[in-house]
Amino acid sequence: MNIIEAISGRRSVRRFTSRPISDGDLHTILCAGMSGPSAVNARPWSFIVVRDRDTLSRMADGNGAAAQPLKGAALGIMVLGDMTRAFERAPDYWVIDGSIAAQNMILAAHGLGIGSVWLGTWPQKEKIDAQRRLFELPESAVPHSIIAFGYPDESQKDLPARGGYEEGRVHFEKWTRKD
Amino acid sequence: MNIIEAISGRRSVRRFTSRPISDGDLHTILCAGMSGPSAVNARPWSFIVVRDRDTLSRMADGNGAAAQPLKGAALGIMVLGDMTRAFERAPDYWVIDGSIAAQNMILAAHGLGIGSVWLGTWPQKEKIDAQRRLFELPESAVPHSIIAFGYPDESQKDLPARGGYEEGRVHFEKWTRKD
Repeated sequence: MNIIEAISGRRSVRRFTSRPISDGDLHTILCAGMSGPSAVNARPWSFIVVRDRDTLSRMADGNGAAAQPLKGAALGIMVLGDMTRAFERAPDYWVIDGSIAAQNMILAAHGLGIGSVWLGTWPQKEKIDAQRRLFELPESAVPHSIIAFGYPDESQKDLPARGGYEEGRVHFEKWTRKD
Repeated sequence: MNIIEAISGRRSVRRFTSRPISDGDLHTILCAGMSGPSAVNARPWSFIVVRDRDTLSRMADGNGAAAQPLKGAALGIMVLGDMTRAFERAPDYWVIDGSIAAQNMILAAHGLGIGSVWLGTWPQKEKIDAQRRLFELPESAVPHSIIAFGYPDESQKDLPARGGYEEGRVHFEKWTRKD
């Protein structure tokens, strides 16, 4: 799949078939997650891959109503910040670096015909704490986001684009909007 | 360019030729930036596109030593958070949403043969403030990152990958590393 088409054609997929994701495709997705840039090349992230249905269900419940699609997913990947690797002078770059990893995984999956939906965890403390408890995480591992992956259910074909190009969001050479 | 190859083949490019980027390619890059998911579909971002050499130079100096490649870029795009659109219950999702926009633009550019390097601004207050002053930004517009774009100089071909798959970063079903 062409990169430009992949980016513009991606939609959040929330219903999945029961088809599993192969270990090979999972590896491709994880490689993509680790191929993005990161501030000072710190690569301050970790990933938890979950296929166990009971664990997926508990992750979903800990992450709130929007995370329910995880219960029907082939697998979920939690992106975590690894604060032992974070850039000392500005550790909060971990948030950006985790986002890059997650978006790369979503796009790679899309290229493989695998749908996904991004389930936000950070910055919502109650969600972060719920995942911390569920996985008994050390202080240095901070839940960032959970991505639910699976083959799209028939109902998820031809989902409309939400948004697209908005002229008013682009400024040329200087800030022009008054607000 | 295939999406998987695009993701794994992307390298940060810091030296560019003098070849300009067409308006059509710029539009494709900006469309990609606006095609990512965002929390509650808030799309809380704006973009400033800069081609003016003097402005690029001042942006670079305001963003520190790592941002100097901007001086030789065909154009720079600053990604900003638009706090007037941020999700009220958890406004800090703007950081993730801006990151998705930036990474989508970098990948789309790569697909067009255009190189880029991500120049971090947020969370470094002195960089944020310098860009705020330069562009006379309202409080609601928060500098997130600057991406320098241009056609790669000959010296930037075959740059080695920095990192790749790290087995120790992946946990299956539960957190397994002790730290």
